[in-house]
Amino acid sequence: MRSSEIQLLPTERLDDLLTHELHIIQSAEVFSFSMDAVLLARFATVPRRGRILDFCTGNGVIPLLLSTRTEATIDAVEIQPRLADMARRSVAWNKKQTQIKIMQGDLRQFHLSMGYGVYDLVTVNPPYMPANTGDQNLNEHYAIARHEIHCTLREVAAACSRMVRTGGRVAMVHRPSRLTEIIEAMREVRLEPKRIQLVHPHAEAEANMVLVEALRDGKPDVKVLPPLIVYNNKNQYNKELMDIYYGPQHEQPKG
Amino acid sequence: MRSSEIQLLPTERLDDLLTHELHIIQSAEVFSFSMDAVLLARFATVPRRGRILDFCTGNGVIPLLLSTRTEATIDAVEIQPRLADMARRSVAWNKKQTQIKIMQGDLRQFHLSMGYGVYDLVTVNPPYMPANTGDQNLNEHYAIARHEIHCTLREVAAACSRMVRTGGRVAMVHRPSRLTEIIEAMREVRLEPKRIQLVHPHAEAEANMVLVEALRDGKPDVKVLPPLIVYNNKNQYNKELMDIYYGPQHEQPKG
Repeated sequence: MRSSEIQLLPTERLDDLLTHELHIIQSAEVFSFSMDAVLLARFATVPRRGRILDFCTGNGVIPLLLSTRTEATIDAVEIQPRLADMARRSVAWNKKQTQIKIMQGDLRQFHLSMGYGVYDLVTVNPPYMPANTGDQNLNEHYAIARHEIHCTLREVAAACSRMVRTGGRVAMVHRPSRLTEIIEAMREVRLEPKRIQLVHPHAEAEANMVLVEALRDGKPDVKVLPPLIVYNNKNQYNKELMDIYYGPQHEQPKG
Repeated sequence: MRSSEIQLLPTERLDDLLTHELHIIQSAEVFSFSMDAVLLARFATVPRRGRILDFCTGNGVIPLLLSTRTEATIDAVEIQPRLADMARRSVAWNKKQTQIKIMQGDLRQFHLSMGYGVYDLVTVNPPYMPANTGDQNLNEHYAIARHEIHCTLREVAAACSRMVRTGGRVAMVHRPSRLTEIIEAMREVRLEPKRIQLVHPHAEAEANMVLVEALRDGKPDVKVLPPLIVYNNKNQYNKELMDIYYGPQHEQPKG
């Protein structure tokens, strides 16, 4: 049994990612991935080979999901040592150590050790909320993951731009309320948004998530993809979401 | 009969706007309004009273439609004398001369005669395509309406910003492919996008129109409204579009 080789710490559990027999270590007290990460991993234009970087990787869900779509090597950076350790053990549990490398570090400093323009794709699911806004009662792990405590949106965009090659892509998931800031922050560092997809919980609801993919040194010309509607009018996942979570063959459970 | 008072020129016809008994003069050889204008007139947050300005008014369809939603006075500017004349005759035919004033002029110069910050709302359906792109075989009237021959996107945003008061709104319809440029051009002149709506011809098609409403000197925080899907999977107008065109009581024609 692989689970005997990889130790679970108190509060941690091993969850099934429901695709390619992947599993992931999570903890309600420290970090659990959300739909945002799953949608980003499927939205990004993934190179078949080459090098991918995932910033703000948390427990490593994005590199694990990306690894099913490509033979590229995937570096992943997380600032919190506790989460980087979880991610590293999940990679080991899935025997993905040759493809995925988890590093603990600060995205603002990452170019100092790695250089500039070395990745074909950079993905990032950054903290959504400015520091000192929203729920102040989060524990430190969640506060850092959700609030711009260690990096602002501008710093995230700048870090992505430094690490991606000319003609390479940067894919981000964020809140639609920040869309104008995202576009401005990207364009300031020569990341030109080329694909945008809005995610709406229902067909008649405002968007609550936005996926943006930019091309380093691209020309202005953006496509807005068909909207992704999460729930149908019976409050069940729409077919597209079912396909993303369970694969295209899966039948929706009857309710 | 009112039509005897207002002269129709060769190629012109009088079309029914299908709401509030409004009619409009059009000409296939000079200018006909499109769905874009209708959606903008319904999308904009309209003040009950005060002053509204419509730039690039064409044959005046937006002021005519806006006049059914407000008691505000509406000034409208069109650079082409032929179109401004059509618009003026449509206003007269509908007996809206006390509410709507059509002016022939260049939006880049409009502040020289009118001053700054005098409108509560500015609407604009500008040319969508850069000069020297796309179909070069258009007649001059259509070329000016569709291409940035007399005004670039930046000049349009700057003109709107000059004319709207602090806290007033600017509503624009444009192509989604220009979305990043629209947002940047607006923010450069202190117009902060606050409401965005994408229009998709079908639920599974890329957006082909975008509506953006900005607040002069607003703070960054944008809502992306539910997507507007034009046709259902039977290629009929969706209910929302039927309501916009024919009013909420109208039954969709069978067949």
